[in-house]
Amino acid sequence: MIDINKNFTQLSEDYLFRNIALKVAKFREENPNKKIIKMGIGDVSLPITKNIVKSFHKAIDDMSKKETFKGYGNEQGYDFLRENIKKYYQNRNVILDIDEIFISDGAKSDLGNILDIFDNNINVTISNPVYPAYVDANIINGNKINFINGDISNNFLPTLDDKCKESLVYICSPNNPTGAVYDKDSLKNIVDFANRNNCIIIFDSAYEIFIEDQNLPHSIFEIDGAKNCAIEICSFSKSAGFTGVRCGYTIIPKEVKLNKISLNKLWFRRQSTKFNGVSYITQVGANEFFSEASQKEIVNIVKYYKRNSKLIFDTLTKLNILCYGGVNSPYVWLKTPNKESSWEYFDLLLEGLGIVGTPGVGFGKNGEGYFRLTGFSSYEDTILAMNKFEEFYKK
Amino acid sequence: MIDINKNFTQLSEDYLFRNIALKVAKFREENPNKKIIKMGIGDVSLPITKNIVKSFHKAIDDMSKKETFKGYGNEQGYDFLRENIKKYYQNRNVILDIDEIFISDGAKSDLGNILDIFDNNINVTISNPVYPAYVDANIINGNKINFINGDISNNFLPTLDDKCKESLVYICSPNNPTGAVYDKDSLKNIVDFANRNNCIIIFDSAYEIFIEDQNLPHSIFEIDGAKNCAIEICSFSKSAGFTGVRCGYTIIPKEVKLNKISLNKLWFRRQSTKFNGVSYITQVGANEFFSEASQKEIVNIVKYYKRNSKLIFDTLTKLNILCYGGVNSPYVWLKTPNKESSWEYFDLLLEGLGIVGTPGVGFGKNGEGYFRLTGFSSYEDTILAMNKFEEFYKK
Repeated sequence: MIDINKNFTQLSEDYLFRNIALKVAKFREENPNKKIIKMGIGDVSLPITKNIVKSFHKAIDDMSKKETFKGYGNEQGYDFLRENIKKYYQNRNVILDIDEIFISDGAKSDLGNILDIFDNNINVTISNPVYPAYVDANIINGNKINFINGDISNNFLPTLDDKCKESLVYICSPNNPTGAVYDKDSLKNIVDFANRNNCIIIFDSAYEIFIEDQNLPHSIFEIDGAKNCAIEICSFSKSAGFTGVRCGYTIIPKEVKLNKISLNKLWFRRQSTKFNGVSYITQVGANEFFSEASQKEIVNIVKYYKRNSKLIFDTLTKLNILCYGGVNSPYVWLKTPNKESSWEYFDLLLEGLGIVGTPGVGFGKNGEGYFRLTGFSSYEDTILAMNKFEEFYKK
Repeated sequence: MIDINKNFTQLSEDYLFRNIALKVAKFREENPNKKIIKMGIGDVSLPITKNIVKSFHKAIDDMSKKETFKGYGNEQGYDFLRENIKKYYQNRNVILDIDEIFISDGAKSDLGNILDIFDNNINVTISNPVYPAYVDANIINGNKINFINGDISNNFLPTLDDKCKESLVYICSPNNPTGAVYDKDSLKNIVDFANRNNCIIIFDSAYEIFIEDQNLPHSIFEIDGAKNCAIEICSFSKSAGFTGVRCGYTIIPKEVKLNKISLNKLWFRRQSTKFNGVSYITQVGANEFFSEASQKEIVNIVKYYKRNSKLIFDTLTKLNILCYGGVNSPYVWLKTPNKESSWEYFDLLLEGLGIVGTPGVGFGKNGEGYFRLTGFSSYEDTILAMNKFEEFYKK
């Protein structure tokens, strides 16, 4: 017997960002001379920093000489990089063993592939709105998804309830798309619930570097008890500008068990079987991210993007458009001012202002009537976009 | 309900290459001054070629400037690279559309991840002996594996029989570990069988570049009818020396369907959801592989490795050790001369000669009593190893 995975037929036909790309391409074709300001897909715009670039070149030199050439590395990544990630967490008083850290080609791969270690048809808890790839990966696996609703009443920070028992819980904090961040108390409630109710948490911390409020947790492992129930998935995409370089990491403490089986061991085996590690060149560059010199460069980049998101937040607020995020996140999440649907607002901004954003409904039902703008454009383009907003809404 | 994927408990405890690494580490600890010649894991030893190195540096320069920086690319890869792969196939009269080519971070990832588009519990046909990752990935997915036996009687080129109907058929040609290559007639039989009996073929062509016999097919798509039933997975690992760089590609013709569903569309969706493309730097380097200048460099590298495998083949044959492969493959597959088991022979070579090879049984039951050596070492080490063999067996 052979058959396709029929769960694919349950996926909705198109993927959010692909739809946006098609609409933009059409607009560009019809308006070849109009400038388009991209504030849609969460892609960075600043180049790789000088020190990381230097490391990349050095790594390539290594690959060009017989004495320093690197072939297959460990599937779980080079120790030098894992040691530095360990130290990065140590600075927040999170003590990890390097065997608990797995280097990957990006958070998106791991967020999907992690499902390999779980049964099919399991219960999954996903906040709504959220990054759409969680949902699609779980549909492909045939899992039963229970959405927990983020909305104005809970500041887009949903909590767990009885329906979430015995489930795999996805938490994204700072949240994509809303920019909402769980504080330690609310995260503690989630961790305690998970430990009491046989849940495993997948904590997506891809945007942790944008947190500026000293009291907010960057890692779920800052919370007592999380090491018994949580997997953390992070990325160099937004911090080191690696969206086009592809590197991330997944942390599975050895204590995390399901029916007495260590998930760390299962993931190790999954990766040993279906993955062959990340490019040596990429890992050397990612490693440089942690140097003192690079951290200084990175701080400036984060500041640059956040100046943009603050400008967006402040401008829209001044125009009486209700906004979330923008402070501990590169994203500004706005309520469409005249009850436009998310896609109506997309068309309005694209056709009226030449601005590409992301329709909130693309992140789930609860995103309908909302819209995401990002601070990842250039400062100049962000000013330009905000001027267009002001002009448009002052008419 | 939440549970682990219980199929993991069906995996045998350890992975072949990890076992070897452990034994070698132990030997090294106990014999710190003895030279070890590595002819075990199929890893290349020559550095990346000059032109590809140049392209890598150029790609990094692109990433270091705002004007040329690349963020997210298409999940399926850059068109420039796909166009060149298309041309590479065109040279063998295989006409592809670039939408049929998906760039990946290596064959191992795709060989495992491709199972996502198939149902669980499907029938799978795997030749034995073969690259062990096929088996483990299928166990993880809960599939029912039917082995087809390669042995002396069929020159390690098993054919399909009634038990293979309605199954996913893995074919690796040139075969890892035996070095055996299907000719066009035998491959045509497999393709015809697949088309008659609702099979899908996964054709692993990772070693195609080592084929020197002009009559042997490099791609399954050189065979009439293959476009209706085959997926081909290839890699830059052995051809461009990318074992540590990670790049490969998967070809799914649009005509390949299962129950009227296009597998190309399913894989496109799978990759869009659970993968985010390969590093721009890597893709620029892989692209350079196809230039005239690089192809000349690559020819020399392949010659270098094959001089090694020929030397191994000739030396062992002279010593009356039965050998396969070595001609259209970097691998020499030998029958242990004194009925040693594969692991006994591993210990004998490591402890007696300081040579690391791969126990044949690691590639499946039919590999018991066989052993794999590779031409991927340096020429100097290969000579040294062969001198040790001669000395040992002439005693």
